[in-house]
Amino acid sequence: MRSLFSSVIFLSIFASIQTQAFEYLQPLPDTPVIPADNPQSDKKIQLGKQLYFDSRLSNDGAVSCNSCHNLAGSADAEGSTLNMQARGVTRDAPSLWNIGHMSTYYWDARSLALEAQAVDHLLDPRIMDMLSEEKIVGRLNRIPGYRLAFENTFKDQKISMENIGKAIAAFERTLNTPDSPFDQYIKGNKSKISKAAKRGITIFTNKGCLACHFGVNFAGPAPGPALKMGDGFYEMFPNYRGTYYEEKYRFVDDLGRYHVTLDPEDKVMWRVPSLRNVIDTAPYFHNGAVNDINEAVRIMSKAQFNYDITEAEVSDVVAFLKTLTGKYPEITLPRLPEANGVSLVE
Amino acid sequence: MRSLFSSVIFLSIFASIQTQAFEYLQPLPDTPVIPADNPQSDKKIQLGKQLYFDSRLSNDGAVSCNSCHNLAGSADAEGSTLNMQARGVTRDAPSLWNIGHMSTYYWDARSLALEAQAVDHLLDPRIMDMLSEEKIVGRLNRIPGYRLAFENTFKDQKISMENIGKAIAAFERTLNTPDSPFDQYIKGNKSKISKAAKRGITIFTNKGCLACHFGVNFAGPAPGPALKMGDGFYEMFPNYRGTYYEEKYRFVDDLGRYHVTLDPEDKVMWRVPSLRNVIDTAPYFHNGAVNDINEAVRIMSKAQFNYDITEAEVSDVVAFLKTLTGKYPEITLPRLPEANGVSLVE
Repeated sequence: MRSLFSSVIFLSIFASIQTQAFEYLQPLPDTPVIPADNPQSDKKIQLGKQLYFDSRLSNDGAVSCNSCHNLAGSADAEGSTLNMQARGVTRDAPSLWNIGHMSTYYWDARSLALEAQAVDHLLDPRIMDMLSEEKIVGRLNRIPGYRLAFENTFKDQKISMENIGKAIAAFERTLNTPDSPFDQYIKGNKSKISKAAKRGITIFTNKGCLACHFGVNFAGPAPGPALKMGDGFYEMFPNYRGTYYEEKYRFVDDLGRYHVTLDPEDKVMWRVPSLRNVIDTAPYFHNGAVNDINEAVRIMSKAQFNYDITEAEVSDVVAFLKTLTGKYPEITLPRLPEANGVSLVE
Repeated sequence: MRSLFSSVIFLSIFASIQTQAFEYLQPLPDTPVIPADNPQSDKKIQLGKQLYFDSRLSNDGAVSCNSCHNLAGSADAEGSTLNMQARGVTRDAPSLWNIGHMSTYYWDARSLALEAQAVDHLLDPRIMDMLSEEKIVGRLNRIPGYRLAFENTFKDQKISMENIGKAIAAFERTLNTPDSPFDQYIKGNKSKISKAAKRGITIFTNKGCLACHFGVNFAGPAPGPALKMGDGFYEMFPNYRGTYYEEKYRFVDDLGRYHVTLDPEDKVMWRVPSLRNVIDTAPYFHNGAVNDINEAVRIMSKAQFNYDITEAEVSDVVAFLKTLTGKYPEITLPRLPEANGVSLVE
């Protein structure tokens, strides 16, 4: 079911979009909202980083979070769904930068919190394939360094699914890319982006892209006073059916949120993805079928607004999208705690 | 063919081992020998690090060097052959720490220099599967950041297989773990290792392990004045055939160097692997079939010397092996150069 919240926002933006566009264009805050039940701490972030890079969190010992969501970049590395196709994954691995500003997780929003998605990834037979809490907790308990780290990080001192999810989420909330040229522009430094990019913002606003891609993350409302974590912001893609692109890229082979709710109204509904750093996240769309950002812009124009965008307009919109690449933080590779001469992967 | 060099060293050590053991036990130098035709430079090392972490160097965009040789650790992550089994890889991915001290590469020494192994990995259909130089060079040429980096790093300014190999090798030569407790001990700090570890050294020496596992990397002679790069140091494993272990772990399903030379004398001959950081590199042996270091010690004793080692001796040898874990350098994740909104993986 399309969320009421989403529809209300959508309509109200459409009504006012041309006069008030800049309320919907916001700079990225330095950090996302931190949930009260999972406060950040250095120890938790460091533990989460170890877990993020540890392929022992997958059944066969071959896949860590970073295998698909590669924090070194690049585009293709990030979207390496190909590695996962044999496992039944058909969707492109989204970039995790600024992920703390989302209110739901996965393309179909089947996880309702950042903490939950980590746990859901671990259990999913198509992803980390650990299948049971006992297996995960049992394996980590055989690694003395993890036993100590969980003891030192959490009040209950336990290695548990809940604490694993909290630690990984805490690390993920540090993955932010502030200070993009766009952010500096929106804060008042008008020379930070090109004339083409400014024209791109106007097209982006006037054509209606901003109706869905607004807010700090260009993905709709961020969690905060206006939106509870777990409230979804969904839109239909494609909005206009039967285009040339739809067939070429097989967009509707996957019915999106429908697979979660089984509600016919949710067919081809998707969580609105962020556009931040989008130039660095090729290939594009839920199935990763589109290799070029120019083509992605053409497709969005046609499929969402039935508008045949000109190549000059594509060029301007892409110039704008290029301004959304922020400053990636320097990340030191963690040292994973070892199991003292024992292999834990059967 | 078993190398003459190897046999001569082997015999001479056996003759003198009990009196001169400590000549064969050496601390790890801070850096390996650097070949004259590939001097280290900061730019080259940084470029090599990017290439090392870039999964676009594999055909399907899913596998980087770091996918199997994970510099975060751990044991299982490092040896994640399981990920590669579908590709036809049957051997455990060795740790790359201190790899610059080896004189040949791969378990079967089929690459004769560090520069060569990088290139060989890229072309191998079972590993990176890029198959042709044109494909690799063509893909990297579509990434502006790489074009610039190769221009700035190499005299000929070109993206070429030779330069790719040189850059990755330069980075790999920084992957050293000096200052293990053993190194401090051998340099004179006699309190750095336990009594059990000292007993372990005596067993290791007197039983003959040191005949193969000697030198700075416990892997035979390092490249230098005494050994040209590309000269191999091979030994037979198992040396005594038909043991219980051989059948249980299917060690001779793979005939090792024979597959490279097709010389019957090379059946079950292997490049001697390093023992540095061995406690962190489970699972063990060429096929990764052994999950526990204690079992690995039992197997080596029986298969190489036909000696039924006692559990007390196993414990002492493992105590010694634990002293071989050095200080892992801190590694900052590189930022991979992007292709500006284009996916390069077809």
